[in-house]
Amino acid sequence: MASTFAIGLDFGTNSARAVVVDCADGRTVGTHVAGYRSGERGVVLDPGDPHLARQHPADYLEALREATRGALAAAERTPGFARERVIGIGADTTGSTPLPVDARARPLALDPEFRDEPAALAWLWKDHTAAEEAAEITRIAREHAPEYLAPIGGTYSSEWFWSKIWRCLRVAPRVFDAAATWVELADYIPAVLTGVDDARRIPRGVCAAGHKALYSPEWGGLPSREFLARLDSRLAELRDRLYDEAHAADRAAGGLSAEWADVLGLRAGIPVAIGAFDAHYGAVGAGIEPGTLVKIIGTSTCDIAIAPADGPRAEIRGICGIVNGSVMPGWYGIEAGQSAVGDLLRWWVEVVCEGDERLHAELSDRAARLRPGESGLLALDWNNGNRTVLVDPRLTGLLLGQTLHTTRAEVYRALIEATAFGARVIVDRLTESGVPIERVVCCGGIAAKNELFMRIYADVLGHPMLLAGSDQTPALGAAVAAAVAAGSAAGGYDTFAEAKARMTSLKEERFTPDPAAHAVYDELYAMYRELHDGFGGVPGAAVELGTVMKRLLALRERVVGGGAS
Amino acid sequence: MASTFAIGLDFGTNSARAVVVDCADGRTVGTHVAGYRSGERGVVLDPGDPHLARQHPADYLEALREATRGALAAAERTPGFARERVIGIGADTTGSTPLPVDARARPLALDPEFRDEPAALAWLWKDHTAAEEAAEITRIAREHAPEYLAPIGGTYSSEWFWSKIWRCLRVAPRVFDAAATWVELADYIPAVLTGVDDARRIPRGVCAAGHKALYSPEWGGLPSREFLARLDSRLAELRDRLYDEAHAADRAAGGLSAEWADVLGLRAGIPVAIGAFDAHYGAVGAGIEPGTLVKIIGTSTCDIAIAPADGPRAEIRGICGIVNGSVMPGWYGIEAGQSAVGDLLRWWVEVVCEGDERLHAELSDRAARLRPGESGLLALDWNNGNRTVLVDPRLTGLLLGQTLHTTRAEVYRALIEATAFGARVIVDRLTESGVPIERVVCCGGIAAKNELFMRIYADVLGHPMLLAGSDQTPALGAAVAAAVAAGSAAGGYDTFAEAKARMTSLKEERFTPDPAAHAVYDELYAMYRELHDGFGGVPGAAVELGTVMKRLLALRERVVGGGAS
Repeated sequence: MASTFAIGLDFGTNSARAVVVDCADGRTVGTHVAGYRSGERGVVLDPGDPHLARQHPADYLEALREATRGALAAAERTPGFARERVIGIGADTTGSTPLPVDARARPLALDPEFRDEPAALAWLWKDHTAAEEAAEITRIAREHAPEYLAPIGGTYSSEWFWSKIWRCLRVAPRVFDAAATWVELADYIPAVLTGVDDARRIPRGVCAAGHKALYSPEWGGLPSREFLARLDSRLAELRDRLYDEAHAADRAAGGLSAEWADVLGLRAGIPVAIGAFDAHYGAVGAGIEPGTLVKIIGTSTCDIAIAPADGPRAEIRGICGIVNGSVMPGWYGIEAGQSAVGDLLRWWVEVVCEGDERLHAELSDRAARLRPGESGLLALDWNNGNRTVLVDPRLTGLLLGQTLHTTRAEVYRALIEATAFGARVIVDRLTESGVPIERVVCCGGIAAKNELFMRIYADVLGHPMLLAGSDQTPALGAAVAAAVAAGSAAGGYDTFAEAKARMTSLKEERFTPDPAAHAVYDELYAMYRELHDGFGGVPGAAVELGTVMKRLLALRERVVGGGAS
Repeated sequence: MASTFAIGLDFGTNSARAVVVDCADGRTVGTHVAGYRSGERGVVLDPGDPHLARQHPADYLEALREATRGALAAAERTPGFARERVIGIGADTTGSTPLPVDARARPLALDPEFRDEPAALAWLWKDHTAAEEAAEITRIAREHAPEYLAPIGGTYSSEWFWSKIWRCLRVAPRVFDAAATWVELADYIPAVLTGVDDARRIPRGVCAAGHKALYSPEWGGLPSREFLARLDSRLAELRDRLYDEAHAADRAAGGLSAEWADVLGLRAGIPVAIGAFDAHYGAVGAGIEPGTLVKIIGTSTCDIAIAPADGPRAEIRGICGIVNGSVMPGWYGIEAGQSAVGDLLRWWVEVVCEGDERLHAELSDRAARLRPGESGLLALDWNNGNRTVLVDPRLTGLLLGQTLHTTRAEVYRALIEATAFGARVIVDRLTESGVPIERVVCCGGIAAKNELFMRIYADVLGHPMLLAGSDQTPALGAAVAAAVAAGSAAGGYDTFAEAKARMTSLKEERFTPDPAAHAVYDELYAMYRELHDGFGGVPGAAVELGTVMKRLLALRERVVGGGAS
């Protein structure tokens, strides 16, 4: 049988990528990246407000067209490829990135009336203007609807759906009033491709709904009108213009519209998968399984695990999201994250040491020559707060153990170790909550480029560290979803399990823990936990503060085998 | 009446300095510095043992000759000066820097038999080879003679007299056996100048004896034979070859020998003052008074205060030395210190940031533009342990509050602030122990060169920061002691009070606290104390660990007047 192909689209912060993959083995036959044109590399900023980060929907449409056409053009240079053999399209995006649309599901930002209105743009995931609203939502939910907070780790974020819409209502009521509904970017792209022209008929994915909009079938969908009225009566009214049901990727969002089929040179009617966030389809593209934590490591990390949806929903303290079907149908998708990983190293190398990529490499080389415990340093990885498991943005960094001889390379290593300890806190929390983790699959540039980083993680976690076979796991995962949406009859697959098994892979290189290093890191991790729980305000934290520095020195002396002469 | 002159000699770590001053007003009429020749800038090191730091006594003799002759030659170019008008000589040195001498009071290192024996050299103050011995002395004293530890802050140091001699006994028994006695450098220089040729007749100063050798009239001089026998019976035997009495500078060590009078071109028989440590005569040269803390600020600091000797000896927890007469006759000399001040900034600028003097200046400029509390940072100044009041070398640095935007200049300022908080702990401890401190007089390069440093200290301490008028306060203080040893009949003074009043001065520039900045620093200092007591292991320390980071953020937001938008 001739090959079939699926398209995966990945809408990132600065650009959109399209990949065309062979459904037989997930091999990429064409790829293309299209940058966004507005603002700074696609992000519209406000010089007067560092918390504001928006995007222009026109950029999405343009990038969708350019990236997909570019990838298809590249695919056409591959023997065996033909456009009529493309059987489906899937898309993932950043999130929560909601945008207001009119009754015909067109972004308000495209309406000349709102041309100069930033509130009419898409509210990018990292827009933090809605901090007050998030705090109020958390407070009101704690008092009146604590069940809403259980699956999201106990705290509603300023980055999420309701915080942003409420903020819009307050600062730009004209935009709020003009919006027929609000739609996550992850749902907007499939709606565009399937030609939806009615705001009431946009298919919604459970990934965005469950992780960001407090959606759950347990309480009948979105938060109740009563709850929303406690925020603002107009939000309660908006509820009727949103949605009652959100879907896992066990069905398609719809068929490719004739208009877009024409634009892209594809067959009209091929299925477009339900959209999801990049991390979630990224986990699919990394071949996620029970017992595996997929870490998407970039400036920060997003960590994804799954647990059987026919079991009880685990209550995991401090885990930011547990949503049925958000990664794959039939599984709870569990989302955690670290607020700063690549950013923490970038801060040290570029902001403090005022160096560049070469200094990254130099410090990594020097740090690799140190043994665990040798620097005597211990750090907390909280320069950007703590997302999991403390869920507290108002935490800051800590570095402890420095002497007059402490070098920048030692600090560099201590910061990597701190992020690894932070990762271990997440793994421990999942495991003790009934979601055992036995291996970690990494995606992202740091993991692939920095061997020291991977070794330290393996030694700290005591689990093998693996690398996803694809460098574009989100787009690949979206293509997997497309192949499943197409089904086996069309040359795709009937289940994610089959599709994952065939279309995803791991790199051969793997990093296994060194038992001696792991033993030293066990001791350092115990001290990290003391500081973590103490400075993190965990009730009843057992911290022997007065001996921490001495224990680090003693460990250091044991490790280097020296002592005073 | 024609002018009279006194000579002050200051034996530092790398060189010796001589100053010739006018007894009428302390004005320098001639000065000369002579470097030591051996080792690295005068310090003999051992590549195999980073703790070893020794000096060659021949260097002292050569530098004594060269510096004094150079200063006198320079003075002769000043109208009104004449060598016969020099009425006395005083000397200060580093310490504890003991050296073994033979029966004729000649250093063993000058004996060809011991030419290659590092144990026969002077054991420089910063030699740390005797860590084990110091720990044993502390342990045995705690058990059998706790009174010995009361005036030295509770812990005997590896830098001090008995630790080093015991170490010599263990590693170089041949040297120990050959030593007729051991003498502090501060006593050796006056012994040389006065022509002492009998080890039993070396005049000993109470400064070195009281601060470093556990000497006190309260228990009949040096530690008892019984106590020393608990360390080693040969140390008990050595006691008989040391001294029974040590003297304050209310008498001269003796008269200048004919031989040295000839070498230097001075009158034989002019008084040579009792020797003392650099910090102590430095305090005299800075015009120390009750209520004044003299801070000698360099790589570390030495802090000196005085309290009336006719009162009870204050028991001040964690203060490293309280010795009757060690600064001036009639006063308790009280010595405290911070383990790293200049060194802490040097570490940041040179080791971490890999910069030079220009970067020091640049960071100081940038840091000066920050308001107190603006960086959100808080640091502990323990990269080299804590000398006062925790007396714990096994403490290390801490930096807290960093974000992804924290700059090297912000850290630079936080480190200065940390040393200022450390200074305030000392001032608070003195004041609450009955030695009220109302102003600080600074000596040393950092104080004179770095206005930011002085402003921060004034704002943190809430006391005026003053600068000593002389840049060479130790040598000036030694000259003051020489003028007192000479007495008014010879054109000197009969009391230190008179001599200080005439011969020392303050610079006009002074730094007074800004009330608003002081109020912010009060809040930061309270948090510093929490961390200080907590990580320092102070029993019953009240630390609200889980809110520290949030309190810093809240203070920061209050100070910058901002907040989330």
